Amino acid sequence: MKSYKEQFTAFIHELQNNICAAIEQVDGLATFQQDEWQREGGGGGKTRVIANGNVVEKGGVNTSVVHGKLPDSMVQYLKLNNNNFFACGLSLIIHPTNPFVPTVHANYRYFEVYDDNGQVVDQWFAGGSDLTPYYLYEEDAMHFHQTIKNVCDQFDASFYNNYKQACDNYFFNTHRGEARGIGGAFFDYLRANEQHDADFWFNFTTGMGNAFVNSYVPIVEKRKHQPYTDENRYWQAIRRGRYVEFNLIHDKGTLFGLKTNGRIESILMSLPPIVRWDYDFNPSEGSHEEQLLHVLRQPKNWLNTQTN
Amino acid sequence: MKSYKEQFTAFIHELQNNICAAIEQVDGLATFQQDEWQREGGGGGKTRVIANGNVVEKGGVNTSVVHGKLPDSMVQYLKLNNNNFFACGLSLIIHPTNPFVPTVHANYRYFEVYDDNGQVVDQWFAGGSDLTPYYLYEEDAMHFHQTIKNVCDQFDASFYNNYKQACDNYFFNTHRGEARGIGGAFFDYLRANEQHDADFWFNFTTGMGNAFVNSYVPIVEKRKHQPYTDENRYWQAIRRGRYVEFNLIHDKGTLFGLKTNGRIESILMSLPPIVRWDYDFNPSEGSHEEQLLHVLRQPKNWLNTQTN
Repeated sequence: MKSYKEQFTAFIHELQNNICAAIEQVDGLATFQQDEWQREGGGGGKTRVIANGNVVEKGGVNTSVVHGKLPDSMVQYLKLNNNNFFACGLSLIIHPTNPFVPTVHANYRYFEVYDDNGQVVDQWFAGGSDLTPYYLYEEDAMHFHQTIKNVCDQFDASFYNNYKQACDNYFFNTHRGEARGIGGAFFDYLRANEQHDADFWFNFTTGMGNAFVNSYVPIVEKRKHQPYTDENRYWQAIRRGRYVEFNLIHDKGTLFGLKTNGRIESILMSLPPIVRWDYDFNPSEGSHEEQLLHVLRQPKNWLNTQTN
Repeated sequence: MKSYKEQFTAFIHELQNNICAAIEQVDGLATFQQDEWQREGGGGGKTRVIANGNVVEKGGVNTSVVHGKLPDSMVQYLKLNNNNFFACGLSLIIHPTNPFVPTVHANYRYFEVYDDNGQVVDQWFAGGSDLTPYYLYEEDAMHFHQTIKNVCDQFDASFYNNYKQACDNYFFNTHRGEARGIGGAFFDYLRANEQHDADFWFNFTTGMGNAFVNSYVPIVEKRKHQPYTDENRYWQAIRRGRYVEFNLIHDKGTLFGLKTNGRIESILMSLPPIVRWDYDFNPSEGSHEEQLLHVLRQPKNWLNTQTN
């Protein structure tokens, strides 16, 4: 019987291959280029980037398998009693050129903590995915959420609502009072407990990862040929600025990477290619651009599974 | 005799007028637009922005005069025993279109803390200015530093070296191992002490503020007509990304603004207009672009006033 460490490492590498193949197929032009890197403190990763394609302006599907000692700041932050760790995960971001194709982000990861004798004292699964459209198509939001919900419902009827809510809470630019996008699922610290063993969480997390392609690629197929104007691109660049703000001010994954001396170019690969900051840019009243803002300021339930 | 609060408030408003006039003159096309805003907790500000000029792609020269109660996080951060505060300051940033014209940032500010009876229990001056070129012209760096040094030397022979060093230390993207720009001066917590009374620090800080136009505008005049290519603009956009990284990850002024519920559009006005993040962008060896990186990785002494 293989350890979770081995199983999850194998899973993320297979998923990386599958997602890269699906993105290359929907793009039709660009291919991923791989950079393998080593981490000074232990381990390394495979950064796969794609740029200037038919569909993808910039994207990356990265895996990393790292271990060593956590810095004190992270030990405190994660409220741990030990600083020996192992972490492996897949992290992806796709920034399409066409403003009608949404940006997507996802990650799936596994974490272990050891005592000084190398015994596992803590282990958990985590991850999620979320969609960031520049123009709102309710049917796209519903497709993305439904695909996630279908996986969740195989495990527990409460999961979708809980993880959807956690996603809305997490990907929120508090300084702007608006969500980064239209949500998805976010789950963290999935540990074996009285109800569910580690196998259950392994199956849930890998199930979510395996559903990623179906949650996103059909939306890309539907929107990728939609004509757009310079004004649409301008709005996309403004909204990408909010994405940068979230990632650099609020995102804990970015913080973790920077604090553990992760590889900068792999961590900040998430930042969009072309971005604008105008002073006090406001879309005109009643415009499609403004409609998006309404939903970001008041995250909604796309599947009517509950009332707020 | 007017209080420092009144005097410094008058100073920043006069300086705002002078700097705006000088920038409009060197630009020759665009003019500043003013937004006056009120802060919910007390006070407000005058945000003056300029955009799409002959020279300035985006810029702002802002003043704010605010007071009220600091949030606990800021009281701890500033290591204070009271949370009643007054702060006034001028903060400016100019992002030129031409990549051969450097970006500049400056601020000059005054802070008071009160006990529950409204008595001043602490007061200090602070500020500085720093230059961020996209292409290195040593003579421009020397002019900027010499103008600052000339003011410093009127007050104390040690100031220039100390505040230049503090600037290099502060405006450093630790996660990249490189400075934001080629430095300038940075000073904080200038309190009355055994050597110098508050008048001395008032005169020093206002003297630095009054020298700003002479430190920067002659450089703009010299470079503003220099022809540039798309490649020069591309490099400028990449470097502007580093500017965003510093401001959102490391800058304490931005943090202070966000934590005290400052006006978001005035705080983030500092962000450049058009920015790029490419994966692992590296200028070619021996290029002008790469020469800049050498100086950013190893901040140097422009005026040979000391050996490192």
